[in-house]
Amino acid sequence: MRPSGRNLDEMRAISIETDVTRHAEGSCMIRCGDTHVLCTATLEARVPPFLKNSGLGWVTAEYGMLPRATHTRMRREAAAGKQSGRTQEIQRLIGRSLRAGIDRSALGERQITVDCDVIQADGGTRCAAITGGWVALRLAVNKLLKSGEIVTDPIVDHIAAVSCGIYAGQPILDLDYPEDSEAGTDGNFIMTGAGQVVELQASAEGATFSRDEFNELYGLAEKGIAELVKAQAAATS
Amino acid sequence: MRPSGRNLDEMRAISIETDVTRHAEGSCMIRCGDTHVLCTATLEARVPPFLKNSGLGWVTAEYGMLPRATHTRMRREAAAGKQSGRTQEIQRLIGRSLRAGIDRSALGERQITVDCDVIQADGGTRCAAITGGWVALRLAVNKLLKSGEIVTDPIVDHIAAVSCGIYAGQPILDLDYPEDSEAGTDGNFIMTGAGQVVELQASAEGATFSRDEFNELYGLAEKGIAELVKAQAAATS
Amino acid sequence: MRPSGRNLDEMRAISIETDVTRHAEGSCMIRCGDTHVLCTATLEARVPPFLKNSGLGWVTAEYGMLPRATHTRMRREAAAGKQSGRTQEIQRLIGRSLRAGIDRSALGERQITVDCDVIQADGGTRCAAITGGWVALRLAVNKLLKSGEIVTDPIVDHIAAVSCGIYAGQPILDLDYPEDSEAGTDGNFIMTGAGQVVELQASAEGATFSRDEFNELYGLAEKGIAELVKAQAAATS
Amino acid sequence: MRPSGRNLDEMRAISIETDVTRHAEGSCMIRCGDTHVLCTATLEARVPPFLKNSGLGWVTAEYGMLPRATHTRMRREAAAGKQSGRTQEIQRLIGRSLRAGIDRSALGERQITVDCDVIQADGGTRCAAITGGWVALRLAVNKLLKSGEIVTDPIVDHIAAVSCGIYAGQPILDLDYPEDSEAGTDGNFIMTGAGQVVELQASAEGATFSRDEFNELYGLAEKGIAELVKAQAAATS
Amino acid sequence: MRPSGRNLDEMRAISIETDVTRHAEGSCMIRCGDTHVLCTATLEARVPPFLKNSGLGWVTAEYGMLPRATHTRMRREAAAGKQSGRTQEIQRLIGRSLRAGIDRSALGERQITVDCDVIQADGGTRCAAITGGWVALRLAVNKLLKSGEIVTDPIVDHIAAVSCGIYAGQPILDLDYPEDSEAGTDGNFIMTGAGQVVELQASAEGATFSRDEFNELYGLAEKGIAELVKAQAAATS
Amino acid sequence: MRPSGRNLDEMRAISIETDVTRHAEGSCMIRCGDTHVLCTATLEARVPPFLKNSGLGWVTAEYGMLPRATHTRMRREAAAGKQSGRTQEIQRLIGRSLRAGIDRSALGERQITVDCDVIQADGGTRCAAITGGWVALRLAVNKLLKSGEIVTDPIVDHIAAVSCGIYAGQPILDLDYPEDSEAGTDGNFIMTGAGQVVELQASAEGATFSRDEFNELYGLAEKGIAELVKAQAAATS
Repeated sequence: MRPSGRNLDEMRAISIETDVTRHAEGSCMIRCGDTHVLCTATLEARVPPFLKNSGLGWVTAEYGMLPRATHTRMRREAAAGKQSGRTQEIQRLIGRSLRAGIDRSALGERQITVDCDVIQADGGTRCAAITGGWVALRLAVNKLLKSGEIVTDPIVDHIAAVSCGIYAGQPILDLDYPEDSEAGTDGNFIMTGAGQVVELQASAEGATFSRDEFNELYGLAEKGIAELVKAQAAATS
Repeated sequence: MRPSGRNLDEMRAISIETDVTRHAEGSCMIRCGDTHVLCTATLEARVPPFLKNSGLGWVTAEYGMLPRATHTRMRREAAAGKQSGRTQEIQRLIGRSLRAGIDRSALGERQITVDCDVIQADGGTRCAAITGGWVALRLAVNKLLKSGEIVTDPIVDHIAAVSCGIYAGQPILDLDYPEDSEAGTDGNFIMTGAGQVVELQASAEGATFSRDEFNELYGLAEKGIAELVKAQAAATS
Repeated sequence: MRPSGRNLDEMRAISIETDVTRHAEGSCMIRCGDTHVLCTATLEARVPPFLKNSGLGWVTAEYGMLPRATHTRMRREAAAGKQSGRTQEIQRLIGRSLRAGIDRSALGERQITVDCDVIQADGGTRCAAITGGWVALRLAVNKLLKSGEIVTDPIVDHIAAVSCGIYAGQPILDLDYPEDSEAGTDGNFIMTGAGQVVELQASAEGATFSRDEFNELYGLAEKGIAELVKAQAAATS
Repeated sequence: MRPSGRNLDEMRAISIETDVTRHAEGSCMIRCGDTHVLCTATLEARVPPFLKNSGLGWVTAEYGMLPRATHTRMRREAAAGKQSGRTQEIQRLIGRSLRAGIDRSALGERQITVDCDVIQADGGTRCAAITGGWVALRLAVNKLLKSGEIVTDPIVDHIAAVSCGIYAGQPILDLDYPEDSEAGTDGNFIMTGAGQVVELQASAEGATFSRDEFNELYGLAEKGIAELVKAQAAATS
Repeated sequence: MRPSGRNLDEMRAISIETDVTRHAEGSCMIRCGDTHVLCTATLEARVPPFLKNSGLGWVTAEYGMLPRATHTRMRREAAAGKQSGRTQEIQRLIGRSLRAGIDRSALGERQITVDCDVIQADGGTRCAAITGGWVALRLAVNKLLKSGEIVTDPIVDHIAAVSCGIYAGQPILDLDYPEDSEAGTDGNFIMTGAGQVVELQASAEGATFSRDEFNELYGLAEKGIAELVKAQAAATS
Repeated sequence: MRPSGRNLDEMRAISIETDVTRHAEGSCMIRCGDTHVLCTATLEARVPPFLKNSGLGWVTAEYGMLPRATHTRMRREAAAGKQSGRTQEIQRLIGRSLRAGIDRSALGERQITVDCDVIQADGGTRCAAITGGWVALRLAVNKLLKSGEIVTDPIVDHIAAVSCGIYAGQPILDLDYPEDSEAGTDGNFIMTGAGQVVELQASAEGATFSRDEFNELYGLAEKGIAELVKAQAAATS
């Protein structure tokens, strides 16, 4: 029934390749089916002005998409002279989500910038960016721990994200682009390894949805997050 | 226990004053406690290029905040030369929400732009903007119906929005600014008069939250939306 | 003869409502007929860099117009990404005018920012902004005096502004929009309570004007300013 | 008494050199003492969209200043990414002023763009730009008349501009930079060859001014304009 | 003697992997040592306005660098709100170079946009972008030929680029970043498969250079280009 | 054979008028035929942040073109809100070239900004800007030497630039606009008084070029540079 032929609760194949660029303190290429996102974590020994002398660190994120990551070429944001509202919304979400898994006091006055650049898009890029961004962050923090710059691990739990939605009247997990563009409802769940919610959001694109329908989406998301967390653990162990 | 002294499930006083400006096709000043938003609806006999000859109408929204709507003065976005990511995120949300209550085919090739300008802010401005924006939209559409320009009412249901959150460990309804700035979790629910969800979003600002906690927020939101819809109906009847 | 039915030297009804927003140190809603401008004064204990350690204070102004303050909706300047030349010209004028009524040495190293936002426009918005802006400034300074932060009143006189013009060959006072859009000559006079000029400007939109005609406009302006100063005094006493 | 050693009602030496660039349809270098402005008029067989099929022409102006036209180097506006409020105010004034001397119906659907670029500044650049801009405009229109493209001269009169002000308590004519930067009141008068006013503006920089003082400035301006008009006539005859 | 340990006339290892993204009409990842550039070619059935109805096609290029492609993170150009002068200079160069190898008449009224995004940088990114960009272009044109949309191959020859420079007084070929940052002279040669020059440029970073020295660089470049052309041929055969 | 009627190796008439503006520390108007560029050098007792406490000075350049310097009017870059890629490329080139002739240690922590503004364009504006820019720089440095602020002359040699190209199959020197717009190959050579190269660049606009052809261009450039250096010496002696 799904264009992808997957079962309603079936994720796309997940692959997380680490240490893919030589300069970044942490990096991975995450592939969720045909959605490929390059995530790098940059560590700097400084914090934004509002945190100076606070003893707290900062994690922030930026998101971009190569012009031909999509089916038809999109205008390069640098050429357009600004980031779209969508881009800003996504990168704010990634930053908030990753901060939820960090003890900023244990990190100390350091900033980690996670760049998530979509190399190829097929739906679910913001979720892949969060899931892969956490891996890059984890690897950068590992360097700090290994070098002895910090002693207590500031990462308190995994952070992963998955989409779900109502397609042709059926709740489905992990939408690809053809599914996403036809779905009546579209949601993103960002959760910890322990199953707590960091952020959830669901939006009716066409028909509105009921409390029961939302509960079904919630259940699917819990299943998907568990699989993603397992893949993160495998990639960073 | 709440800084406002309200009960956990108690809304702020709601007032919706209609026809407050002489030029707009529909307008209201919505006051949710000390949050005051001026909403105007502008009707135009044209649609964006992507809808030309589609037979469908369009509803879009813009959001702004006067520089001294807030406790300390904020920089004017026109002077800064761009709308912040927050502003863009909010106005995209308002537009999406209002479109969910419209039959765009019945509206025909017309565009309605809903401007929501915060005159005074005390938390919950995006929710007040949606609830008041719907009233401005309703009044503008009433003009079209009265003049006979359209025959079928394109508005299919009320759209209203309310915030809820977890404050000092307790789920509460309709956060004002002091509550919002201390809340561990913060959510916005946008629903129809029939109780269907248009969009919901919840975000952990500090501690993450569990499925049970989220369910409590959901119940509070249903109560708040019912009160807002009643106020909308009274203002536009 | 005037579209408004007023006598040639008759002002529109003036109303100045004070303390209309809870956050600003001074505020008013000034209504000159159907032109409504919300003016707020923000007090800050800092001055621009060029005044550091000078012992002098600063008064500056910003001007904006809600998109649907006008008959047809105007593009939001924040969305356009810049303030128009007209906006910049007006806010520079408001700032210069208000500074002319201030002893900046008595104010000390403080900055007062006066925001003038047009809620509804029907001609003469810049004059209403100056007249109302002075009221907001007066109220903010009163707070400083009351709290004992400053001892000498830095406000040396009222500042008010009125438009006049030549309409259908006749000099008239206080043009509304229909008059303004047809006037051959259009002028703005900004004066003190003592009748001294802070700034005057007159411009031929169609036919040029003679020295005699200008003198008639000058006389009308003196009459109008006297009425505005009286209204300011009533509102702030 | 004047820093320049001139009499109170004495203009700086005026020189207007015509046809100074080979590409423009009309051009001149106007020198008012040490203020040098290069003015070019560009003729195009098109009008802005709002005048299409109106039968009316358009005259518009742009103003710029070379970075080192001034005593200390100013940032290049192209590098800053925008024209300052001052620049926009000046170029709007030049355009309005020149349009006041044109019969746009006799010009027909053509646009003339007058560029005024300050090569060296010593006060009064906007006045020199208007006076020189008119010469460039006159020369460009002469070409149209000579070629027979238009038959009726659309230029109805000279347009010239001069500054005057109150310096050390004395009304003076044609302020240079040292005078301008110390003047208590500063005014610009834009008039026709017949002595009618196109626009006048006077502003108190320090002390406010009285009606009597303004009248003295008016008289000085009439004298200055007459001299400028004579120089324009000599340059274009 | 070279930091890289290479001989003076030794290129870095070249690898060109084709068809690396599923959406673009042509794509490759070119790796010149540790410099990795993703090149995609987008084919569109339209040309820029200045070529409408000319019968001629257009090839253009855009260049970007991921923020952490470099040793320390660079600010994202989309966030900065503009492309740097360096970026614009490079993308203009890539476009000019690729157009030199195309018969635009045989291409017909089509546009091919070549996007070159640096995934990892170690010197010579503009040269790698040109060499890889040609491969992406070749692959996209192959599709047009295969589908029969065009019959005559519009690609008239290979286009490849290589850097050379004077390092520690010695002419060397294909500089990596450590060599580039210390080189006294730095040049780029863009040539065809036949050894004709499309563009050459050499610049003294420290000491100036003589005609003899330049001639040595020229010889190195001819050797390097031959190797790159061979790699292009192997990748696209 | 040349549109200009010049011999293949004949330069246009060169004129360098010095001290043409009263504010700049050094200035000249350079005229290469009908290409006229005003060059000013501004001296400041500060360096960019990256050179603070380095003991080194800095020379930088900016380039602009008056809107009607060209045959048809070009949009003013300040109005467009940004400098074009071409402008940035040229001003970076001017700055690099002038720095090659300076001993930045002898200059000390001072910045000299060379502004090159094209008053009239007829091809070769970037070369005229470099040649004239060096004269302005020389004159500004002379002031420093004369005043005793610096003792060792930081200028180590002349810097001059000339264009050459292949027109109708023939190598020619110093292209004017009609020649430039038709040339198959276009090159710029920037050299010192001693004949060393600072930067050279050659680009095929139509047909590619061979090594022999390039060598002919090189010879022409050497002849042209010698003449320019002689003119610089005459103007500054």
